[in-house]
Amino acid sequence: MRDAYHEELHSISLDLVEMARLAGSAIGRATTALLDADLRLAESVIDSDDEIDALEHGLEQKAIGLLVRQQPVATDLRLIVTSLKMSADLERAGDLARHIAKLARLRYPDTMVPADLHATVQEMGKLAQRLIAKAGETVITRDVAQAKQLESDDDEMDLLHRTIFQHLLDERWEHGVETAVDVTLLGRYYERFADHAVSVANHVVFLVTGEHTAPAP
Amino acid sequence: MRDAYHEELHSISLDLVEMARLAGSAIGRATTALLDADLRLAESVIDSDDEIDALEHGLEQKAIGLLVRQQPVATDLRLIVTSLKMSADLERAGDLARHIAKLARLRYPDTMVPADLHATVQEMGKLAQRLIAKAGETVITRDVAQAKQLESDDDEMDLLHRTIFQHLLDERWEHGVETAVDVTLLGRYYERFADHAVSVANHVVFLVTGEHTAPAP
Repeated sequence: MRDAYHEELHSISLDLVEMARLAGSAIGRATTALLDADLRLAESVIDSDDEIDALEHGLEQKAIGLLVRQQPVATDLRLIVTSLKMSADLERAGDLARHIAKLARLRYPDTMVPADLHATVQEMGKLAQRLIAKAGETVITRDVAQAKQLESDDDEMDLLHRTIFQHLLDERWEHGVETAVDVTLLGRYYERFADHAVSVANHVVFLVTGEHTAPAP
Repeated sequence: MRDAYHEELHSISLDLVEMARLAGSAIGRATTALLDADLRLAESVIDSDDEIDALEHGLEQKAIGLLVRQQPVATDLRLIVTSLKMSADLERAGDLARHIAKLARLRYPDTMVPADLHATVQEMGKLAQRLIAKAGETVITRDVAQAKQLESDDDEMDLLHRTIFQHLLDERWEHGVETAVDVTLLGRYYERFADHAVSVANHVVFLVTGEHTAPAP
């Protein structure tokens, strides 16, 4: 049976899982809102980001409380410090989903994504969801092999991002500069979202092995 | 006289100041490299980012060491936890300076900044330097009023960023889509750099007052 101390320590991990779930849901819904020009959905993503922010603050309070009352050492201490970093990543991932929802709202009732980029953006949204879900899983499983996999999963995102640039820089681009600006930012948001998922997984690797993975460029 | 414990605690703050100094120097040099198409300078910025990363790792080791050996409470504990967050901000600010230097390198021997945007980008670079220098100062002075000022200083960055968008979306824009993409990313990098400076200052406010400032949007 777990004592209160370990319950609280475990609840920090559960908060991280919940933050990952919310960020995944947010980027999935933001992508749909963007591609379907669904204003109500975009607004629900923008509003729901507060929930992730509140979880981050709550987690920080718990972490400081544990440090003060329990003075944990070794692995537990590393878990707490690392959790603070993971929650910062997940909070930021939520922000990026909100940025995408804001782009959707800004261009409503149009969709800013040209038809020939729909499939790519769709794929970026799905991949972002998969990456953050996997990152959330590794927080619980502490599976180093799975956590390390996220780096190569992220290569897929880089490929999709490059596809977007190819479209943008193709001389046949016919959607004007405003859409080019929107699409550039959009691609950046998905890429950064994926970076934060990878960062969470890298923190898991550090937690288990004590070794830092080189940060994503 | 300070004992070894307080010396070490203080040295964490000095590391933050040094990180801020390096990030400020990096964004200043990156801006010059970009506007003058100075390849060697761009490469020196790219290489020197390792120094900031190393400081972040060192700071983390110190922080964990202090938590384990000294089991600090109250203010000291808050200082350590907050320092971890500030160092993450400063590390990220360094990354953004490196991104700008990479853009400069990518377009060398050209400069990607159209002549009519030179002054704006110049100003963004200077403002970014001022913001991060001020953020670094507040880490030592713990001056809440000064720290809170960074939010309004950041409004200047938002204005400059908006100037860039006005140029991009002006129908007389004649620099093509590739430059529009570059300039969009460039504006985003300066804006995010400034956000991280504001975030450092907000952490100082939290450290002194115990109250969270609303995060930058």
